[in-house]
Amino acid sequence: MEAKEQDVSLGANKFPERQPIGIAAQSHDEGKDYKEPPPAPLFEPSELTSWSFYRAGIAEFVATFLFLYITILTVMGVSRSESKCKSVGIQGIAWSFGGGHINPAVTFGLFLARKLSLTRAVFYIVMQTLGAIAGAGVVKGFEGKTLYGKLNGGANFVAPGYTKGDGLGAEIVGTFVLVYTVFSATDAKRSARDSHVPILAPLPIGFAVFLVHLATIPITGTGINPARSLGAAIIFNKDLGWDDHWIFWVGPFIGAALAALYHTVVIRAIPFKSS
Amino acid sequence: MEAKEQDVSLGANKFPERQPIGIAAQSHDEGKDYKEPPPAPLFEPSELTSWSFYRAGIAEFVATFLFLYITILTVMGVSRSESKCKSVGIQGIAWSFGGGHINPAVTFGLFLARKLSLTRAVFYIVMQTLGAIAGAGVVKGFEGKTLYGKLNGGANFVAPGYTKGDGLGAEIVGTFVLVYTVFSATDAKRSARDSHVPILAPLPIGFAVFLVHLATIPITGTGINPARSLGAAIIFNKDLGWDDHWIFWVGPFIGAALAALYHTVVIRAIPFKSS
Amino acid sequence: MEAKEQDVSLGANKFPERQPIGIAAQSHDEGKDYKEPPPAPLFEPSELTSWSFYRAGIAEFVATFLFLYITILTVMGVSRSESKCKSVGIQGIAWSFGGGHINPAVTFGLFLARKLSLTRAVFYIVMQTLGAIAGAGVVKGFEGKTLYGKLNGGANFVAPGYTKGDGLGAEIVGTFVLVYTVFSATDAKRSARDSHVPILAPLPIGFAVFLVHLATIPITGTGINPARSLGAAIIFNKDLGWDDHWIFWVGPFIGAALAALYHTVVIRAIPFKSS
Amino acid sequence: MEAKEQDVSLGANKFPERQPIGIAAQSHDEGKDYKEPPPAPLFEPSELTSWSFYRAGIAEFVATFLFLYITILTVMGVSRSESKCKSVGIQGIAWSFGGGHINPAVTFGLFLARKLSLTRAVFYIVMQTLGAIAGAGVVKGFEGKTLYGKLNGGANFVAPGYTKGDGLGAEIVGTFVLVYTVFSATDAKRSARDSHVPILAPLPIGFAVFLVHLATIPITGTGINPARSLGAAIIFNKDLGWDDHWIFWVGPFIGAALAALYHTVVIRAIPFKSS
Repeated sequence: MEAKEQDVSLGANKFPERQPIGIAAQSHDEGKDYKEPPPAPLFEPSELTSWSFYRAGIAEFVATFLFLYITILTVMGVSRSESKCKSVGIQGIAWSFGGGHINPAVTFGLFLARKLSLTRAVFYIVMQTLGAIAGAGVVKGFEGKTLYGKLNGGANFVAPGYTKGDGLGAEIVGTFVLVYTVFSATDAKRSARDSHVPILAPLPIGFAVFLVHLATIPITGTGINPARSLGAAIIFNKDLGWDDHWIFWVGPFIGAALAALYHTVVIRAIPFKSS
Repeated sequence: MEAKEQDVSLGANKFPERQPIGIAAQSHDEGKDYKEPPPAPLFEPSELTSWSFYRAGIAEFVATFLFLYITILTVMGVSRSESKCKSVGIQGIAWSFGGGHINPAVTFGLFLARKLSLTRAVFYIVMQTLGAIAGAGVVKGFEGKTLYGKLNGGANFVAPGYTKGDGLGAEIVGTFVLVYTVFSATDAKRSARDSHVPILAPLPIGFAVFLVHLATIPITGTGINPARSLGAAIIFNKDLGWDDHWIFWVGPFIGAALAALYHTVVIRAIPFKSS
Repeated sequence: MEAKEQDVSLGANKFPERQPIGIAAQSHDEGKDYKEPPPAPLFEPSELTSWSFYRAGIAEFVATFLFLYITILTVMGVSRSESKCKSVGIQGIAWSFGGGHINPAVTFGLFLARKLSLTRAVFYIVMQTLGAIAGAGVVKGFEGKTLYGKLNGGANFVAPGYTKGDGLGAEIVGTFVLVYTVFSATDAKRSARDSHVPILAPLPIGFAVFLVHLATIPITGTGINPARSLGAAIIFNKDLGWDDHWIFWVGPFIGAALAALYHTVVIRAIPFKSS
Repeated sequence: MEAKEQDVSLGANKFPERQPIGIAAQSHDEGKDYKEPPPAPLFEPSELTSWSFYRAGIAEFVATFLFLYITILTVMGVSRSESKCKSVGIQGIAWSFGGGHINPAVTFGLFLARKLSLTRAVFYIVMQTLGAIAGAGVVKGFEGKTLYGKLNGGANFVAPGYTKGDGLGAEIVGTFVLVYTVFSATDAKRSARDSHVPILAPLPIGFAVFLVHLATIPITGTGINPARSLGAAIIFNKDLGWDDHWIFWVGPFIGAALAALYHTVVIRAIPFKSS
């Protein structure tokens, strides 16, 4: 039933089961002004022969390359506050770049929600990782070995005074915020539901990333993007960058899975709908 | 009469009673391209059996949890300027999260304007408060007792050098700005009225919160959200957090009521319209 | 002729006289998807009996009150950088408040472009000035005489090391930027012209104000709003606030007039159109 | 074929060749809800007799004048962080000013993509350069020779510790980001493709510029706009401003060309489409 999701919106005061706000007189099928795409198949081997599949992969590479380039270069830059500000909108900008995910956790969350096939998810994550390594590498080329090492190469690790559990928790919550925002911003349903509140994908996503950075840079440097953490760790390549590295894969993937679950069960209530 | 509200918009130079700008040739009923929902009933017991009612409550809990998590963690962070910046957009982000109010003052203002039932308003406020306590609690778990206490746990209180009246006034005006912005951004009428100026709910709300913080952090730390103030006070639990605590409920509720009144009487002129 | 204005848009490579981009096959009248309101009359005495006229004035008062409240309180606040940041978006927020101009220079520019009657323009400016005085007064009440005086009460004056000519020039250019942005953002024509680029009135206006502040705070404190300058000067009431005060009326009014002229002649080319 | 480009968008899981998402049942021609303008001719002498041609040039002059005025004045201002912040949105504001490119690299990239004629591109670049010189000149008039010189007049040069190759690379990547964002934001196709994600031209462009500044101010001061670099160099007119000046033309033009290529081949896949 269509009506069920609508009552989460602001000020909803009617049972959606009885009377969806604003479209009460419309039949359910006619009331749908969005199209829910069918779940993606797990494997679709014929994708591999499509030029568009590879174009999407190249876009992931380029967007993640630029993400690491700007991020790590800014960390190299000067003050700490800058390294935080850098994140304002960078994920948002990336979305303007042809829709790149630039983040394995985002790709994983969208895969769990069946928005893309496993083939495509794996390919995207590989391209993101390669782009991240290339981006961090270019920055190391600019900055020279000394400065790069002094600032730990922008690598993520759990700061002294925090436990590994703190770091893992921070990565889980931070990625939850990011991936949940991605779901909200790109949800075909949403723009239909709140039709008087246009959804601005790039900016809220950028703000979400920014806020998470403000909160958790002191704890982990804020990963919430395994490709970013891996690219920085590989180019930096010291124990400091590798010791806690698992946290920056396990945390984001758990956070992304929770966000996919929350979006599906609580916000969209998909399991409760009788199709 | 439809025309009455239109003349507040920019450059209005005609009496709306005579000639609404831009829709002069349309009859009143046809000119309405928005739907004014009917006022919410005070009590609607059957809501309590609806899964959507509880989903909305869970969304309030999660959004307020995340709000406190990011807010208090950032206060714990480092510099003061950061603790201000944190607020840029966080309320805006929260609105992307399925439309959560995350603020009892917002819920109260919308209730006064009959946008949701009393049942729902009370349930939302309870869930917001629980979410706030949980969010502040997680931050205390991360930070340990010492650092948490040193920074007063992000609790709100009237700063030395200001009277309780200053603090109350600051909370009233600040909440007025927030709640008024919420009314403007979510007003179904508005998007119809200024159809060439798309309304961007999340960002102006976030900016409003940000500006209020810039102005009043030196006075009260800026509450304008009773759940946030209560969550921080409970987890901090010292006299400093409790002494002025009433200000952070009374001020926001007065500000929200004034905003609802101003929106209804001055901007929308609802009492003056002959339906 | 409709087509003339279109070629200023991005990448226009055709003579609008010959082939308007994207609507080539449409006749001129059908192609107009916006409505150019007729010029406002200079005097319209019957406006004075309209409740909507007074509601608009109250909205100007409230919006300008809040503008001064936040602005001056932030100047009182702490660091200088904050007092700049405060301006991000505050004019934008004000526009969400029922379309308030909150600025006599904006009202003057729109009056020159015949967007509102002289009656209304004068009434708006009076209400803006009263709102500004009230807002600055409340801040003085909060802060006490000592601190208020030490920070010059947020009054505008030409900083040592700059000539009065520099200050006047800075106010002219700054107000030009603001008022021009207002014209762009609220131009009914524009949203039709660049239909794939939605216009976001509040944010660009806020950014324009922010950028002008970054540039000219060291010179004049950045007025570009005579009501704001007058309100601060009256409440501060010292020679420092009054000596250069004329600059903060003459500069903004010249800048607003130039912006109205530029918009009309260069961007819209209205004098060149055969109606 | 229309379908080809669609699969770059988020979560695309179908071969566009087979089934474009959301418009599966529509024929290709009917599915096109945007209009791809024809490529601009290289020379169109009749443009020179069009008033609209000169209006566009005046708009480029004014926008670039204001860009330099605000940019250089802010650099003169005070702290370094401000000089970075200045860039937030200034290019975006410029776009509100009647669509000005204000940047020869942007004009060059759009020319390569055949979005405007060579005649118009050359005229725009000349007007941008004149506007930049005028803007920098006014700032020098305000600030006096001493302060202006001390801060190097806002001129771009490769900072000590970086090679000319680093500087060139930074300009190439930075301009790539800017010009690519311009393509994304103004692409008629895009708004059709992601119809539930409204594209916000001014803001993402402004953010892109801001992020690039955060990353590369320590290296070159961040040019990515030859008119800005030339205007500052001419008014400053010392060896420091001229020695590396070629980098600020060659780098941006290479970056713009790469962005045009990437947009055309990878994102839009225009060469692969059978028209």
